[in-house]
Amino acid sequence: MAAKKVTRQDLREASETYKNWGKWGPDDEVGTLNYTSAEDIVAAAQLVRKGKVISLALNFDHTGPQGAKSKYPTMGRTNPIHTMLRTGTDAYSGALDARGIRAADDMVVMPLQCGTQWDGLGHVFYENHMWNGYDCRTVTSAGAQKCGIEKTKDRMVGRGVLLDIPLMLGMPHLPDTFAITNELLDKAEKHFGVEVRRGDYLLVRTGQMEAMLAAKSWDGYSGGDAPGLAFETLDWLHKKQVAAVATDTWGAEVRPNETDEANQPWHWISIPIMGLTVGEIFDLSELSKECAADKLYEFLFVAPALPVTGAVASPVNPLAIK
Amino acid sequence: MAAKKVTRQDLREASETYKNWGKWGPDDEVGTLNYTSAEDIVAAAQLVRKGKVISLALNFDHTGPQGAKSKYPTMGRTNPIHTMLRTGTDAYSGALDARGIRAADDMVVMPLQCGTQWDGLGHVFYENHMWNGYDCRTVTSAGAQKCGIEKTKDRMVGRGVLLDIPLMLGMPHLPDTFAITNELLDKAEKHFGVEVRRGDYLLVRTGQMEAMLAAKSWDGYSGGDAPGLAFETLDWLHKKQVAAVATDTWGAEVRPNETDEANQPWHWISIPIMGLTVGEIFDLSELSKECAADKLYEFLFVAPALPVTGAVASPVNPLAIK
Amino acid sequence: MAAKKVTRQDLREASETYKNWGKWGPDDEVGTLNYTSAEDIVAAAQLVRKGKVISLALNFDHTGPQGAKSKYPTMGRTNPIHTMLRTGTDAYSGALDARGIRAADDMVVMPLQCGTQWDGLGHVFYENHMWNGYDCRTVTSAGAQKCGIEKTKDRMVGRGVLLDIPLMLGMPHLPDTFAITNELLDKAEKHFGVEVRRGDYLLVRTGQMEAMLAAKSWDGYSGGDAPGLAFETLDWLHKKQVAAVATDTWGAEVRPNETDEANQPWHWISIPIMGLTVGEIFDLSELSKECAADKLYEFLFVAPALPVTGAVASPVNPLAIK
Amino acid sequence: MAAKKVTRQDLREASETYKNWGKWGPDDEVGTLNYTSAEDIVAAAQLVRKGKVISLALNFDHTGPQGAKSKYPTMGRTNPIHTMLRTGTDAYSGALDARGIRAADDMVVMPLQCGTQWDGLGHVFYENHMWNGYDCRTVTSAGAQKCGIEKTKDRMVGRGVLLDIPLMLGMPHLPDTFAITNELLDKAEKHFGVEVRRGDYLLVRTGQMEAMLAAKSWDGYSGGDAPGLAFETLDWLHKKQVAAVATDTWGAEVRPNETDEANQPWHWISIPIMGLTVGEIFDLSELSKECAADKLYEFLFVAPALPVTGAVASPVNPLAIK
Repeated sequence: MAAKKVTRQDLREASETYKNWGKWGPDDEVGTLNYTSAEDIVAAAQLVRKGKVISLALNFDHTGPQGAKSKYPTMGRTNPIHTMLRTGTDAYSGALDARGIRAADDMVVMPLQCGTQWDGLGHVFYENHMWNGYDCRTVTSAGAQKCGIEKTKDRMVGRGVLLDIPLMLGMPHLPDTFAITNELLDKAEKHFGVEVRRGDYLLVRTGQMEAMLAAKSWDGYSGGDAPGLAFETLDWLHKKQVAAVATDTWGAEVRPNETDEANQPWHWISIPIMGLTVGEIFDLSELSKECAADKLYEFLFVAPALPVTGAVASPVNPLAIK
Repeated sequence: MAAKKVTRQDLREASETYKNWGKWGPDDEVGTLNYTSAEDIVAAAQLVRKGKVISLALNFDHTGPQGAKSKYPTMGRTNPIHTMLRTGTDAYSGALDARGIRAADDMVVMPLQCGTQWDGLGHVFYENHMWNGYDCRTVTSAGAQKCGIEKTKDRMVGRGVLLDIPLMLGMPHLPDTFAITNELLDKAEKHFGVEVRRGDYLLVRTGQMEAMLAAKSWDGYSGGDAPGLAFETLDWLHKKQVAAVATDTWGAEVRPNETDEANQPWHWISIPIMGLTVGEIFDLSELSKECAADKLYEFLFVAPALPVTGAVASPVNPLAIK
Repeated sequence: MAAKKVTRQDLREASETYKNWGKWGPDDEVGTLNYTSAEDIVAAAQLVRKGKVISLALNFDHTGPQGAKSKYPTMGRTNPIHTMLRTGTDAYSGALDARGIRAADDMVVMPLQCGTQWDGLGHVFYENHMWNGYDCRTVTSAGAQKCGIEKTKDRMVGRGVLLDIPLMLGMPHLPDTFAITNELLDKAEKHFGVEVRRGDYLLVRTGQMEAMLAAKSWDGYSGGDAPGLAFETLDWLHKKQVAAVATDTWGAEVRPNETDEANQPWHWISIPIMGLTVGEIFDLSELSKECAADKLYEFLFVAPALPVTGAVASPVNPLAIK
Repeated sequence: MAAKKVTRQDLREASETYKNWGKWGPDDEVGTLNYTSAEDIVAAAQLVRKGKVISLALNFDHTGPQGAKSKYPTMGRTNPIHTMLRTGTDAYSGALDARGIRAADDMVVMPLQCGTQWDGLGHVFYENHMWNGYDCRTVTSAGAQKCGIEKTKDRMVGRGVLLDIPLMLGMPHLPDTFAITNELLDKAEKHFGVEVRRGDYLLVRTGQMEAMLAAKSWDGYSGGDAPGLAFETLDWLHKKQVAAVATDTWGAEVRPNETDEANQPWHWISIPIMGLTVGEIFDLSELSKECAADKLYEFLFVAPALPVTGAVASPVNPLAIK
């Protein structure tokens, strides 16, 4: 569906055109999150008009999107494993009374990108470099010495904007392989009467998640064909100077990709070159309905990453507050 | 330092006096979080005046508070284990090029109460019952079938209030065994010119965390002696109708406890009887300084739990937004 | 295919008939492993005649039998997750040189019954009791205070005997629902010229594993239909006084089970009542070929459990040494 | 205590002198384990004379040697975390009855070198190479594509020999910094009347573990000062052509190391250059007593690695069978 064939040469050019390295100084580790100013946060708070909180997270459990059938080679991502360290049944059995308190405790084992998540700036490299020109070798088995997700711990607050593409097009959900172009993004701004501005957290809905949930199967979601952002949206996002962008798909960009010469070419540029934080597997279903009802496509957005030191991603419970 | 000796009979009486079971219907699973109204959220957003975001989370890593020496019997809580599934060094070595993208990925193994965290309502039982009268046997090895932390996924937003007790008393930090009484809480409201109201998220600072960080050792933090809330504050919190309360200590209440007949007696009542969500290991150091500087002890508070299905707690990156 | 319908009354009777509680004293925690005498071990060592070691373990990895499609309700068992703590790519990148040594390190997350494994005596309860009459409440979230697998750390050595049922019957593998009866076991002893004796480690092959491996899918293996031991074999195994029994299936006994009144009725009796250690998911394919070639169905068997304290099972690399 | 100062030049020379690359063909992945012949295994089985099985494993649990205080920089190794997936208390509470069986299940999270363990041949690199000349980049975050521990699944069986150095010297245990030299090894063979031969599994006792256990603290064990093999023993082991060597210390070789130019210099050569599998944290205490009692320092040794695909090490329950 994507008209243009992206070549390695296009990637090289894009890596120069959209390069934000150094823009916030040589030591910056959070990239476009810097676009959100204190004033933007104050203004975003004013968008809270009815006191409604909408979670954009899937629950984290064994029914999540990992582990389903996929043609994509495995990356070691599994659904979360939640285990108990103490239980109510222990309490009932009297096994805890020696402690003097009846309490349950628990633990989780989870790939940081197993569900609703932020891609941190340590997640993708362009050749041997990551965001701001840091050497990719700073991300070792000991974690990311640069651009760890913990560097964002006091960010991820600002104005959120939803562009609900399938709703605009009168479709229940965008079909796989559907590329969301710059033209469509422009059109969506007008359609929904909302302008994407510098420092915004942009949420782009494709509806693919609802299609999966309705089918009661995640087969093909992780790494399979999907609707998503066209490669050219790098230009749109770069000019708009958004803080971050998130979608309801596994990998944000359209799949199959618009090239055979790279995998996830939009990621090659967005994260390491632009310094753009990317959200994936956001559940935008309730927000879609809420915005359709009140016709307001902007809101306070708060989605703090869990500051796991040296992490290249984080599970998150993003909140839209209207 | 605590004058009053709490007996099992006191616990029984408190379990009747402060019981909120049924207050929000027989199916409620979030307790006092219900106190925060939509209007409260709208009003709280108005407290964002300078666009400053302050994270109240410790970073999650192997230097965290678990694993230090303690007289308290182990509960299986360890510091987070963060491991990489793909690295920048893999990228540099060319090992990822067959995938067509150079990307890092990671995983975490973490007890849900290993660091900055919410105690969910499935965490503590009073005899054979949990919040709202649910049977404790609904919390099995398969997780909490009632009151799982995922039930709070669109809560944890409201007006935050900081009561900075050591600052008021002119102490760098409260000493171990120091009980924060109702009188002190009343006094703090006046001292800081802030009234704690229904639906608020109350943060009580003891300064113990800064003492630990200064000592570069967490020995004695988990389960050891600590300053904290007196048992009688149950009454104060019950009357104030706060949504939740959080402190910078391991266990919120004063230790040694005010009784030999139970462990963590305040927890016996607050969580299962009142339905009070409790935050622990919150890092209030930066917030303390910020409030001291601007003299404003109220702010927008957003601290979304990670909705791990059936979890009895959640790590969290709580944000105070001023 | 199983003629007899097992009732709850049959289970009650079997729980009396085959009860070995107290047989090795009130403090015993290893059950029928006691049947193997020092003399048996000396004699078993004499069976090593050609110096051939055959591993009966599947490799432990993400291609293992867990996670496949099954009608059986999930039990939280997943395939092992193997992650690296340091890598050769870290070494190549120079990231380890500050340590003065280039070394890799790794970690595993694994349910103890995810692959080739021993069921320990803490694994199954008969009503409120486990082996030797211990209270089931001694197996808490803190592990098995009685009958932990670590109690077997110097056991699991003896004479191994293979009864290769499909080979005897001229079938590539037994079909699902095929019940291996006492008559077949008797017949197999004669057919292969080997007598099962007190203290032996008995391996019963069904061939189901090879069928799964040939199909390149584990769908239906875990908890699905399967060939296996008939309920009546409890009598045969009890009289033979074997130390342990192991098969190449997920659950040892025939499925669907010979009853609708219980799940895995053979397990209700074998483990908690007889004190029989049970091996599952043993890969008997190479051993089958080796024994068919040399016509010797007895060998030295060494299959030490990993002594994880308080564990109710253990992954294992069982060795047949001929 | 070590007289000789090992230089980087010595390492370079040793890497040529002791190089076994290609000795068992270009595709070999198990190194000196090849020294053990089928005949050796048959002969070793004859050493089983009294049917006594001695486990050389520490139990795997939270009291293990990791996590203790150490000056050595952390490597991410923690003690095992054992959690339950179903419990006897669940059973008692009736929570499992819907399944039709009352059964417990469990899981472990463990660094593969957290306790008694084999170092596989993927564990240490000499510059950019591992055993047999394989490129170190074959050990990525996805595991060891060459020399994974699963390649040893049918090895680790042979004649075991114990050289009990502190017993010979009349010391309860060797002191930290004590280097076990070739002269001492020669002397021990004579003292105990046992000759180390080609293909043997050599166990060298220092007694350090018993000293730690007696002190009830592992502080300083992992990476701290320790008695151990001198660098020169590479020559002795090379000439003896042992299959593997194991000790009761954390790191086999003497610490502080005999050089400031490398960390664990003996490891630089033994594993990647000689292809020698190394055992560490073996509990030799009971074996020491048993051998002292019967004066027999040889036995059947069976210590199968858990075949975790791509692993560079394995926890193990090694058995000495006399």
